[in-house]
Amino acid sequence: MARRRGTRASRLRRSRLKQSAWQQVRNRLPPIEVLSADEVEHIHAGSLRILRDIGMTIQNDEALDVLRRAGASVSRADCKVRFDPAHIEEVLPLLPAEFDVQARDPAKSLTVGGDRITFCSTTGPAFASDLDRGRRPGTHEDMCDFIRIVHSLNIIHHEGGAGLEPLDLPERTRYLDMMYAQCTLTDKTWHPCWKNSREKARDIVEMSRISLGASRSEVERRPGVVTGITTNSPLLLDGPIAEGLMELARANQPIGVAAFTMAGAMSPATLAGALVQQNAEVLAGFMLIQAVRPGCPVLYGNFATNVDLRSGAPAFGTPEHAKCAHAAGQMARRYRVPFRSSNTTGSNAVDAQATYENAMSLWGTVMGHANLLRHAGGWLEGGLTASFEKLIVDAEQLQAIAEYLRPIDIDESTLAIDVIAEVAPGGHFLDTKDTLDRYENAFYEPMLSDWRTFEAWNEDGARSATERANAIWKQLLEGYQRPSMDPAIEDELTDYVARRKIAIVRDGK
Amino acid sequence: MARRRGTRASRLRRSRLKQSAWQQVRNRLPPIEVLSADEVEHIHAGSLRILRDIGMTIQNDEALDVLRRAGASVSRADCKVRFDPAHIEEVLPLLPAEFDVQARDPAKSLTVGGDRITFCSTTGPAFASDLDRGRRPGTHEDMCDFIRIVHSLNIIHHEGGAGLEPLDLPERTRYLDMMYAQCTLTDKTWHPCWKNSREKARDIVEMSRISLGASRSEVERRPGVVTGITTNSPLLLDGPIAEGLMELARANQPIGVAAFTMAGAMSPATLAGALVQQNAEVLAGFMLIQAVRPGCPVLYGNFATNVDLRSGAPAFGTPEHAKCAHAAGQMARRYRVPFRSSNTTGSNAVDAQATYENAMSLWGTVMGHANLLRHAGGWLEGGLTASFEKLIVDAEQLQAIAEYLRPIDIDESTLAIDVIAEVAPGGHFLDTKDTLDRYENAFYEPMLSDWRTFEAWNEDGARSATERANAIWKQLLEGYQRPSMDPAIEDELTDYVARRKIAIVRDGK
Repeated sequence: MARRRGTRASRLRRSRLKQSAWQQVRNRLPPIEVLSADEVEHIHAGSLRILRDIGMTIQNDEALDVLRRAGASVSRADCKVRFDPAHIEEVLPLLPAEFDVQARDPAKSLTVGGDRITFCSTTGPAFASDLDRGRRPGTHEDMCDFIRIVHSLNIIHHEGGAGLEPLDLPERTRYLDMMYAQCTLTDKTWHPCWKNSREKARDIVEMSRISLGASRSEVERRPGVVTGITTNSPLLLDGPIAEGLMELARANQPIGVAAFTMAGAMSPATLAGALVQQNAEVLAGFMLIQAVRPGCPVLYGNFATNVDLRSGAPAFGTPEHAKCAHAAGQMARRYRVPFRSSNTTGSNAVDAQATYENAMSLWGTVMGHANLLRHAGGWLEGGLTASFEKLIVDAEQLQAIAEYLRPIDIDESTLAIDVIAEVAPGGHFLDTKDTLDRYENAFYEPMLSDWRTFEAWNEDGARSATERANAIWKQLLEGYQRPSMDPAIEDELTDYVARRKIAIVRDGK
Repeated sequence: MARRRGTRASRLRRSRLKQSAWQQVRNRLPPIEVLSADEVEHIHAGSLRILRDIGMTIQNDEALDVLRRAGASVSRADCKVRFDPAHIEEVLPLLPAEFDVQARDPAKSLTVGGDRITFCSTTGPAFASDLDRGRRPGTHEDMCDFIRIVHSLNIIHHEGGAGLEPLDLPERTRYLDMMYAQCTLTDKTWHPCWKNSREKARDIVEMSRISLGASRSEVERRPGVVTGITTNSPLLLDGPIAEGLMELARANQPIGVAAFTMAGAMSPATLAGALVQQNAEVLAGFMLIQAVRPGCPVLYGNFATNVDLRSGAPAFGTPEHAKCAHAAGQMARRYRVPFRSSNTTGSNAVDAQATYENAMSLWGTVMGHANLLRHAGGWLEGGLTASFEKLIVDAEQLQAIAEYLRPIDIDESTLAIDVIAEVAPGGHFLDTKDTLDRYENAFYEPMLSDWRTFEAWNEDGARSATERANAIWKQLLEGYQRPSMDPAIEDELTDYVARRKIAIVRDGK
């Protein structure tokens, strides 16, 4: 009997949670531009000078060969690659302006580029955190729960990288468990977390192919994942990353290339310096990808921010970060490639700091016309922690931004001058026919915000937004339904992972 | 001895708090426009139709006379004023595009209009709140402390209205105590909270004049306050507000005119309807002001937002609010008048909700090119509460926005390609000469954000941003120094307040 009451109560709770419908978000507003056309050209020209005179160090023999054959000047002794500016200018027109990504649920397939924004959940954290259990090393269970909530949030378009690292699983093979969870617990498109070897890159393509029930050529034509790499700034690409990147390019998988240009530490202590170095490193990545497979889709990745010069601590969600996102968006549009940026904060708690730093990040990237917003949901503590409450607070902000980007409807009916004439001076519109007709869909309905009076809110426990977010992720998790998968495909995926684990343990790769 | 240690410790604490320098903030970015040029004209034309066909109700005989003499069609029976569109078009070119406001400290005088943004503290709340004492009815002591902190925050340009209502003082005369505190506890320009009678409006002008040591004609030429009124939407201006507004106009004091168009309650349940009705009410206010004193400076005030149609609760910091701020900014620029909007939230706590709702408000108004941002610091709970912690969280966000609006400096020195050449691939820039030279002023330094590692932050008490804000306002209050005032002026001000209080108690006005 108690159980039955519980079930009915939880059904009621589920039905009360209203979230925005699935939608590809379009940004029709003109981007904010912080650089003049001349300044864009200065950065472009400066980065060509860097690639011609200083060069990019790429610690992988095969990459050096590929680039040498493509026409770059290669010094094998110090792995330095220098590019003729004319060569770069020839390659840039090969880059596709947009690309499609195929989801297991075709309704959740995406186009990346143009005026569309794709919101991704976070990737990379070693820790999981929630209000009940605090901050702890991530586990397989945490990771699966995180993916389940991401699957349940309509505003997160793209499972961004398993959310967190399952540190309770064996290190060498856990990337396979991460991808298995991404393939089976959601039917959205996804981002592989690990790609720093040829084998890992092959596994990405194979597991994506199997889960889509597609052939190799189909998955090359219409990929199921968006991948990405970050250079080892300044001006270095290490061997494993170069190897993975080439394997992904061979399979024509979309690859975001970002630089880790934190001004003052990994780039000069000026935003101009961070931007020109980032541009050089991104272009070097594009050159390697296009040398392997001309026309392979890429994204211009921005991660430019600064460090606190007093402590060396990275600074996230700063004014500098927002301006760099605007500027990097201008560079991406100069090259007519999709633009990728991130939603970041350095806060250690899901508090006002996390929220205002995220707001700065979000506006920088959204108004810089990012096409793919990484870490849009769940990132905390400079990316060390995936927070369950943060995922909900972020989702609320993303929903609001999607609504913000919907144009205002101006016509005779919405101007409603006849309705204004109907109501007495100082009267109210709550019960006019027009208001009642528009009742259902007139305005944005938040998932998390509490608009009750202080007294009602206080009597109900005076819960902060973060505490309410705690209840919402639990409610989503309780209501989660695993998306169906053809049992033959699931078997093939399970077998693949099992075989690969054996090979890795036996052969080391 | 203990006291001495305390003093030294507090001096140290004071010296550690780094805030941005006083600056008039300029916004050189192009505004975000959500309406096409045609849509702006639809709203303009629609509001002229409203003022011609429906009219504005103004419950004050003198106002009706003034407007009739100016050429409006007046029906005394129902206080209805209808305006010929051609008449409105004739008056609009009289409105000044910008105006100066004089502070007691000339370095804090302001120009309102153009590309400048003035950040104001909040006004109107009945409650004060902080983490130590919770939420309580506002007192004179709370109000004075709030003004002291506002005075101490460089990023708050304009004391926005005494912060909160001192409910422990007698109701009829406390507006005088509020203005006395505003005149004496800060040397910034200020906003009077109460102006709903001829006498109150006269007291505003007189107390501003006395505190500036100016003559009546000087204070008419160069006012020391910015005032503002809100209509009683829909389409009503009550008698006391009309009376105060006329008295302020006679003295050539700048007046913001806003409408209380909450879509679904005080205006139709569409943003277009809220915008067209708001425009009509603002234009009606402008017509009355210009009929009294042609050329009197005005601001186009925006407060358009919506209510939650399910509960009737007002919604603040919503996507709708941000879009309306962009649209209202377009209307203000069409009329070439300074634009005023607000920084709002409906949250009951200084939490993530307060912060993301404020972020939405801030970006709506800043990118809508507001020239005067009311309630920019300290507003909580839909304006019912002035929060000391919120004031600090807001100041941090305002500082970040000011920094965001500073252009990126792009030249050979900042591109720093020679510095990039100096550092080894994968190395770091922390100890290059260039970084050390730029050390002091390279990047924005936050006042509130904590960028330490989780471990350091956790060991130091794991304080949230709101808890840290609590320490900061206390530190500012402890370091507060009352700005000096000529004793003769202070005596005159004290006498004025004493005489007015006697007159009010004796004669009722």
